[in-house]
Amino acid sequence: MQLLTDSAAMTLALDWAARGLYTTSPNPRVGCVIVRDGVVIGAGHTQPAGQAHAEIQALRDAEARGNDVRGATAYVTLEPCNHHGRTPPCSDALVRAGLGRVVAAMVDPNPLVAGQGLAKLAAAGIAVSSGLHEAEARELNIGFLSRMQRGVPWVRLKTAASLDGMTALHNGASQWITGPEARADGHAWRARACAILTGIGTVKADDPQLTVRGVDTPRQPRRIIVDSRLEIDPAARVLAGAPCWIVCAVPDPAREAELRAAGHEVILLPNEAGKVDLPALMRELGRREINELHIEAGAQLNGSLIREGCVDELLVYLAPSLLGEARGMFSMPALTSLDQQKRLRFHAIHPLGDDLRILARFTHTKE
Amino acid sequence: MQLLTDSAAMTLALDWAARGLYTTSPNPRVGCVIVRDGVVIGAGHTQPAGQAHAEIQALRDAEARGNDVRGATAYVTLEPCNHHGRTPPCSDALVRAGLGRVVAAMVDPNPLVAGQGLAKLAAAGIAVSSGLHEAEARELNIGFLSRMQRGVPWVRLKTAASLDGMTALHNGASQWITGPEARADGHAWRARACAILTGIGTVKADDPQLTVRGVDTPRQPRRIIVDSRLEIDPAARVLAGAPCWIVCAVPDPAREAELRAAGHEVILLPNEAGKVDLPALMRELGRREINELHIEAGAQLNGSLIREGCVDELLVYLAPSLLGEARGMFSMPALTSLDQQKRLRFHAIHPLGDDLRILARFTHTKE
Repeated sequence: MQLLTDSAAMTLALDWAARGLYTTSPNPRVGCVIVRDGVVIGAGHTQPAGQAHAEIQALRDAEARGNDVRGATAYVTLEPCNHHGRTPPCSDALVRAGLGRVVAAMVDPNPLVAGQGLAKLAAAGIAVSSGLHEAEARELNIGFLSRMQRGVPWVRLKTAASLDGMTALHNGASQWITGPEARADGHAWRARACAILTGIGTVKADDPQLTVRGVDTPRQPRRIIVDSRLEIDPAARVLAGAPCWIVCAVPDPAREAELRAAGHEVILLPNEAGKVDLPALMRELGRREINELHIEAGAQLNGSLIREGCVDELLVYLAPSLLGEARGMFSMPALTSLDQQKRLRFHAIHPLGDDLRILARFTHTKE
Repeated sequence: MQLLTDSAAMTLALDWAARGLYTTSPNPRVGCVIVRDGVVIGAGHTQPAGQAHAEIQALRDAEARGNDVRGATAYVTLEPCNHHGRTPPCSDALVRAGLGRVVAAMVDPNPLVAGQGLAKLAAAGIAVSSGLHEAEARELNIGFLSRMQRGVPWVRLKTAASLDGMTALHNGASQWITGPEARADGHAWRARACAILTGIGTVKADDPQLTVRGVDTPRQPRRIIVDSRLEIDPAARVLAGAPCWIVCAVPDPAREAELRAAGHEVILLPNEAGKVDLPALMRELGRREINELHIEAGAQLNGSLIREGCVDELLVYLAPSLLGEARGMFSMPALTSLDQQKRLRFHAIHPLGDDLRILARFTHTKE
């Protein structure tokens, strides 16, 4: 029998947390593993919002297996909550169950928790600590943390390009620049987002569904269309199925009424230039509990989002091909000095079939 | 004491071969390790052309260390030569020394050898085999093999670009898109090449020296300038120091005489369009014993070389930055269908400081 170290037990808890990758939104993905004498006696992860948190799931699992949790150690990937939300506080449940020790990967930055969960446990005589595998725990809830700490989602912009940085031919042809592995991976990133955002240009050009396909998930992300003048065709495929949020800059009562009648929501957010105020949109999406925002748009909207500092991370699928004179990734005006270049840092590189997946984060982003 | 397996001994021989990375040209880089009872008793690598080959170096090393090589095994990264070049045949030396077994990583494709080296050893009663770690051995001599098998150099095109595929601003600013590690690495790739090629556009714009700097090497690669109309300024920095080869398409006796008087060679290679015939240039460079050709040129010449099928490999330094509207990597006309895209395969990805180094090979290339 394998006796788990603290580090190994927390790694297991992170694995459990990841099981909620597609389902816990807008709650964080949390895992909990209860260990006695180096052996797992209960484990669980956060259920969809309104249902049990990870700690409760793990306690129930231990009980169902006939295990006594008194004096045992619980490893949780996020500080147990201490407030009455849609469910009662997990800290109370852990105290009642008689746990001897609680190890958290990180303190919950949610102002409703913020250390009070651990404090209540400590006050009840439970040994507490936090910070074990914190970096991994932060990655798993990067969107939830962004919303709690900055009031805006974690914004990930996806693009697929040739090695010379081109996303489509001038005639618009862009299908299958990257291979099936990259495309399938793209759907997994869609699935973990709370919402997928595109622009009216892409809706007109490609008529995408913006749904998650090929991923086993019960939840489809909210679809958001930036459409300054409400030009969207009511027959656009993206408007079929679940309701969308359509963000405009120019009021048009007739079109708004038509879209609302079809179940969609129209959000008016103009800036001074008569376009959609993108930073204000990010704040609005934060208020609407969007943790991770996944963007798949064209060069124009991509460029605007980047220029206005709304993007935290690029998810680039790079194909081993050259397209030559074609459409670029991001439409941004010519610089006059290299000082003005947008700087990022490479976060992770991953081969996918014949392609490369590059995750790069803007250096302006505080994680 | 560590007893070497065949595989480990050949890996050592490959390490020895790599010591000649900057110096053996136009000869291949070869390493030889002599092993008795699992222990190295002699080792060496090919010396600069005209001097001893790896096998002779290893035999001398064993002798200098007082080791008896009779009956021992020699591991060589390339089949021993069997012809009188600038040095006598290594196969004869191995037979005379009484080696019991010779393991080669690969047969020498040089038509003057081509299996005859191993055949002579076998005829003398030495046990021979080949193919151990052949892939690594081929990589090490990719240029020599290209020249022997295709009559042209292995052509590696280096470029540095932002993540959105831009190499310079419209005003030409391109300094320090990538960081110091990438720039130093670029000099190491220059150093292993037999020649560095650029175009008159780059000479006019950047006035580069095209020398190897910051690498401990006794040999500077030949510098080649593609200059169709012989427009090069006699004061260009690239013309200082060692003689250059200047390739033109339009005869200009006065300028040719001036360049020749300064020690440079002018090569006239026009195509039907009045430009330099690039494929013919590659064949000419093969005849001139250029194994690896390193290209650092602008988007125009880069694009022409790629379009005309002269490039085998891209060496791309990708910086984590976005430049937006700027100069692209390769000037190639717009495609009308994705079927026409130039396909490559990613060969190796390597982080270098903040940047990424990507080696990608064209799928049209037979290695």
